[in-house]
Amino acid sequence: MEKTRYQQGVDIIKEYTLTDNEEIGTHMDIVATFKDLAPDLESYIVEFAFGDIYSREGLTKQQQTMVTISSLVTLGTEPQLELHINTGLTIGLTPKEIVGTIVHLIPYTGFPRVLNALKIVKKVFAQRDVKVNE
Amino acid sequence: MEKTRYQQGVDIIKEYTLTDNEEIGTHMDIVATFKDLAPDLESYIVEFAFGDIYSREGLTKQQQTMVTISSLVTLGTEPQLELHINTGLTIGLTPKEIVGTIVHLIPYTGFPRVLNALKIVKKVFAQRDVKVNE
Amino acid sequence: MEKTRYQQGVDIIKEYTLTDNEEIGTHMDIVATFKDLAPDLESYIVEFAFGDIYSREGLTKQQQTMVTISSLVTLGTEPQLELHINTGLTIGLTPKEIVGTIVHLIPYTGFPRVLNALKIVKKVFAQRDVKVNE
Amino acid sequence: MEKTRYQQGVDIIKEYTLTDNEEIGTHMDIVATFKDLAPDLESYIVEFAFGDIYSREGLTKQQQTMVTISSLVTLGTEPQLELHINTGLTIGLTPKEIVGTIVHLIPYTGFPRVLNALKIVKKVFAQRDVKVNE
Amino acid sequence: MEKTRYQQGVDIIKEYTLTDNEEIGTHMDIVATFKDLAPDLESYIVEFAFGDIYSREGLTKQQQTMVTISSLVTLGTEPQLELHINTGLTIGLTPKEIVGTIVHLIPYTGFPRVLNALKIVKKVFAQRDVKVNE
Amino acid sequence: MEKTRYQQGVDIIKEYTLTDNEEIGTHMDIVATFKDLAPDLESYIVEFAFGDIYSREGLTKQQQTMVTISSLVTLGTEPQLELHINTGLTIGLTPKEIVGTIVHLIPYTGFPRVLNALKIVKKVFAQRDVKVNE
Repeated sequence: MEKTRYQQGVDIIKEYTLTDNEEIGTHMDIVATFKDLAPDLESYIVEFAFGDIYSREGLTKQQQTMVTISSLVTLGTEPQLELHINTGLTIGLTPKEIVGTIVHLIPYTGFPRVLNALKIVKKVFAQRDVKVNE
Repeated sequence: MEKTRYQQGVDIIKEYTLTDNEEIGTHMDIVATFKDLAPDLESYIVEFAFGDIYSREGLTKQQQTMVTISSLVTLGTEPQLELHINTGLTIGLTPKEIVGTIVHLIPYTGFPRVLNALKIVKKVFAQRDVKVNE
Repeated sequence: MEKTRYQQGVDIIKEYTLTDNEEIGTHMDIVATFKDLAPDLESYIVEFAFGDIYSREGLTKQQQTMVTISSLVTLGTEPQLELHINTGLTIGLTPKEIVGTIVHLIPYTGFPRVLNALKIVKKVFAQRDVKVNE
Repeated sequence: MEKTRYQQGVDIIKEYTLTDNEEIGTHMDIVATFKDLAPDLESYIVEFAFGDIYSREGLTKQQQTMVTISSLVTLGTEPQLELHINTGLTIGLTPKEIVGTIVHLIPYTGFPRVLNALKIVKKVFAQRDVKVNE
Repeated sequence: MEKTRYQQGVDIIKEYTLTDNEEIGTHMDIVATFKDLAPDLESYIVEFAFGDIYSREGLTKQQQTMVTISSLVTLGTEPQLELHINTGLTIGLTPKEIVGTIVHLIPYTGFPRVLNALKIVKKVFAQRDVKVNE
Repeated sequence: MEKTRYQQGVDIIKEYTLTDNEEIGTHMDIVATFKDLAPDLESYIVEFAFGDIYSREGLTKQQQTMVTISSLVTLGTEPQLELHINTGLTIGLTPKEIVGTIVHLIPYTGFPRVLNALKIVKKVFAQRDVKVNE
């Protein structure tokens, strides 16, 4: 039996965000936060963003997260950047690849966005006790 | 003997942009275009962007270009996007990976930037006679 | 029998874009354009953007389009702005409301984005033979 | 006797921002904050933004605020978004219309800006004891 | 007798844009273009932007235009950038200062916006037969 | 003997940021903060941004900082804006010129970015005990 889009989305979210550290939020927490404001938001995040987009063939999980981080650095939306730096570590981007992704963006987005992003990397790496040379 | 930053940059630019198709511009053409306005621009592009940033360890050429494309889609700067979609094909991103990178950005940058980027992909793929299923 | 998300989306797109003027593109043309690059894009536009988001209760069609136009002016993504100014006229925003929406944005996005948007309004109004005082 | 632009602006600001809750800031507070830095800022906000732009015919107060909120979500400028979500409630946008405006923007600005905006909605609704189903 | 804001604005616009070259547009042309869509736009551009903002004490005309160009490069709004590069030459920024302003932005906005801006500089300098070493 | 790019950069950073107030951060602090994440960042900031770009002829230090501030207001990147408002005071922009730069941007970036920037100006001026009429 084929999985529903919802189940597909939930499974992917788990894969991307499950850690032993309870302090680290997941996309399901976001969904829960806004349940009273817009209950359908759950469907858009779980079914569309994860069940559809993250389920596409063609990119590996590591590539998907690298692409996501690149866009979030460029947008400057920091809460999401924090979430996806965490996601990156969870699905196996090396600390070096995460830092490398962000530093590579200097010529395209300029230093300010990159430095603000690295501040978040520093926070997440400290929280997860990760070093860049690992 | 160690290569100079300039030589390092030129070598990388060649690797990223050398094709048999003379219609496809390279970063050296850009440098030439602005030589009269700002002769030092050559050094910033060749030595800094390529000699320094693209020479960093940690990301593969394919990853660097994926990251670049993600940022350019988010910024909406189309001439550079065209250049780096070309670059992507030249250094071995598959057409599927290029399209996958851009489609993956829908949840982060929205449809308008993604659709405008895909228009450019279509143009470049036609120019280079590339199909997405290759 | 309940409509599928796809049918729901197609019906809404028709409502928003059906005109007698064949020169005016619709969202189905966009979907067709990119079918070879990313066949699933159709589902994201038809099922998610229209079948889900535009089907939400709470805003009228006129309000939805006003909100869309405001965001597109702020982003500066002109092809989509042209499409949705057309959409606005089709679903019954008055020319005065469309211009009013854009002029209202001066204090928030500044003159450049507003003037570039009004240039597109001028083009669309001329194409559809619409005057602002109607 | 015709009102001056200043008086016109002050009247509109009152209409948009007068609440019984003294914790909720108004545009006049902003003007006061910056009086020492740039005393003429008062004239630009009161006379231009409100006396001119908000006095235009063509959009209702509800429409003006919906358009404003859409642009501020897209820009990601959160202090102003908070002010205008408050304004929206004061001039009679329903909670559902405010949430609906922001959720409608997902396809145009992506999830990050929308989720950051909904966090502010949650804060303002709590502060004013407003529920989305009212 | 004190000048009206309108007269003040018109005088400043003349000062910034009057050249012998009829091909070069001025802000009054923009105002004329949109007269049918929004007749009050004239007042916002002439009275507010020029009559108020450009009449402020504290910055020289050269500084005002440098600041304007910096913002337009960062926004990437090209028609306005073209207009204000012209304005810059007219009120006495040297070609070197204009190019210097734009190149200085590389670390802040990245190369793409800077290169797109220099393309416009090249066009304007050619049109006005200006060389960067003058 | 010619200075190295590194020495050139360090000298310029000192000139721009040296104050008696130890609370005010400098670019060297940033470099130190990220040394573990990306040791080469030091070279990009010191050698490229300052050793290359800030060493260009053509703009005065005051002009360079005005241009920088204009771009940072437009981007909305606040930590960097705070740093460069400090820089501006240190290298001799008058408080009036700093405020004038930011207020001049209203027509180009809109009020939200300008008001958020003025909040930072207020903070920096208070910290350094500076008044706008000096």
